[in-house]
Amino acid sequence: KRRNSLNHDDLLSGIIKGDLQALSSGITLLESNRKSDQEEAQKLVNSCLKHSGKSIRVGVTGVPGVGKSTFIEAFGKLVVAKGYKIAVLAVDPSSEKSGGSILGDKTRMNDLSVLENAFIRPSAAGKSLGGVARKTRESIILCEAAGFDFILIETVGVGQSETMVKSMVDFFMLLMLAGAGDELQGIKRGIMEMADALIVTKADGDNLIKARRAKKEYENAIHLFPANENGWIPKTLVASALEQYNIEKTFDTIESFVNHTRINGSFGRNRKQQDKYWLHETITDTLMSNFYSSERLVNEIAVVEKEVIEGRISSFEGAEKLMKIYNHE
Amino acid sequence: KRRNSLNHDDLLSGIIKGDLQALSSGITLLESNRKSDQEEAQKLVNSCLKHSGKSIRVGVTGVPGVGKSTFIEAFGKLVVAKGYKIAVLAVDPSSEKSGGSILGDKTRMNDLSVLENAFIRPSAAGKSLGGVARKTRESIILCEAAGFDFILIETVGVGQSETMVKSMVDFFMLLMLAGAGDELQGIKRGIMEMADALIVTKADGDNLIKARRAKKEYENAIHLFPANENGWIPKTLVASALEQYNIEKTFDTIESFVNHTRINGSFGRNRKQQDKYWLHETITDTLMSNFYSSERLVNEIAVVEKEVIEGRISSFEGAEKLMKIYNHE
Repeated sequence: KRRNSLNHDDLLSGIIKGDLQALSSGITLLESNRKSDQEEAQKLVNSCLKHSGKSIRVGVTGVPGVGKSTFIEAFGKLVVAKGYKIAVLAVDPSSEKSGGSILGDKTRMNDLSVLENAFIRPSAAGKSLGGVARKTRESIILCEAAGFDFILIETVGVGQSETMVKSMVDFFMLLMLAGAGDELQGIKRGIMEMADALIVTKADGDNLIKARRAKKEYENAIHLFPANENGWIPKTLVASALEQYNIEKTFDTIESFVNHTRINGSFGRNRKQQDKYWLHETITDTLMSNFYSSERLVNEIAVVEKEVIEGRISSFEGAEKLMKIYNHE
Repeated sequence: KRRNSLNHDDLLSGIIKGDLQALSSGITLLESNRKSDQEEAQKLVNSCLKHSGKSIRVGVTGVPGVGKSTFIEAFGKLVVAKGYKIAVLAVDPSSEKSGGSILGDKTRMNDLSVLENAFIRPSAAGKSLGGVARKTRESIILCEAAGFDFILIETVGVGQSETMVKSMVDFFMLLMLAGAGDELQGIKRGIMEMADALIVTKADGDNLIKARRAKKEYENAIHLFPANENGWIPKTLVASALEQYNIEKTFDTIESFVNHTRINGSFGRNRKQQDKYWLHETITDTLMSNFYSSERLVNEIAVVEKEVIEGRISSFEGAEKLMKIYNHE
């Protein structure tokens, strides 16, 4: 079914006026796998590019159960109350299978989604993480052209999606639970090291003392991390979406991060690095997917893998063999 | 200059007999960048393949100053005294520039290198980490065909070389210094998490108490790491090459690791995964290097990078543009 029937100029002018229906259709277009839609989507993204770049892009991650949606909703409402526009995009590479989180997100963020200056878009689906990355990056461009001041990219704390989100945002925050026992258990160091802010959630009622203790432990851990290039020392916070506690402080933290990195120039440098990174990342993705989807190699890859595993040829000779078939040599 | 003048059959039979001169010539051949040498080297590696696979491959890393060479020398002498043959290969991607470490290694391991059953080969040089990886992996095959029981791959604790070494060895050990103050400072978590054994070196004299304290701290830290697939809990040790303290225990640790992983099947599984990994890693490397060395793109890449960074085209359109030029479209 064709959900988008608007032409390029109508979509573009709608998006630039901040029309949420047009924005939504635009994102649907770039999520489409139809060849003709993809060409249209590229045209649209290119037209939106010169209107983009002005938002603060914020990544949010945390394990399921940490209260991401509740936190984002509380944060989003605050941002809107301050007179800004906020878009929330979800990245959930696992959802393409279950499709479960899509309805979930919409339901959970009900209070935020009814606000005029908020836009919530469920998970971009895709066959590969590369595909999801592309769609998310392009959705950011469309949202920026539509005048959003803050763009939150939400991801579940699994696998490689954090690295992907980190490489497309200005500010990355990690939500954490105050657990029983040792606070550092079970959290991947790499993800902690990526964070510009660590926020211990559900800091209310009986949980407050535990949350403060956890914050203290994280704070000590952060001192051991290698320093960030941008000179920013990651902040730790406790917060409660339920009691609106430290939601404003989260906002202030982002603001002072942006000031800090704009003054020392790392804000712009980081974005340029990200653009360059995605250029080369896309090249790698394309080269790989062309190779692995090559019809000439359909049966050959498994055969060579077997030969290599059984020690009949070396990994390097195996690669050369496949490369020759691929290149018709 | 051509350092190798032996033909394939002479080289092969020499290597299989365990002749160190033939082994050395074989490795020189596969380090050569001459096209004809490379073809000869491939033939040699393939002939050696069926005689390979029987050694224990051990990775050793640690920051400069940790006493790697001294430790390896003490360990190597012990291994030889037990009646085994040991080869030490160094991976040092930085040495291709300075060339400094080559002489250094030879000099420092003088006691070991004079032993009949020891073979020490300085750093494989190469234009890329991929090239160094290939040469090292192939050197392992040649050393195994020459009957070595232990193959140590030594690397300096910088950059990505640890990940590379980890993916070509059975057992990975990290040497550490007992520092002043906090023991966890400055060590990359990722590298600690890769280690099957953490060894605090220079545990002698005044340093012994400090080393034991450091070992304790590392031990506590290890409990927080995610469990290994192979069910092995990384061991921590203090050791002194000077006083021959715990060198034997290091050997026993490796032995019990091998027993443990052979019994549960992960030893063989890991090797098969590594072979498969290197097959696909080589494919990626080749695709990328063909692309980036393409004459058609010599000037184009910088032009497109600039367009992307200046926001004139998206990263994705930029990639497409380069891809079209590359594919003559």
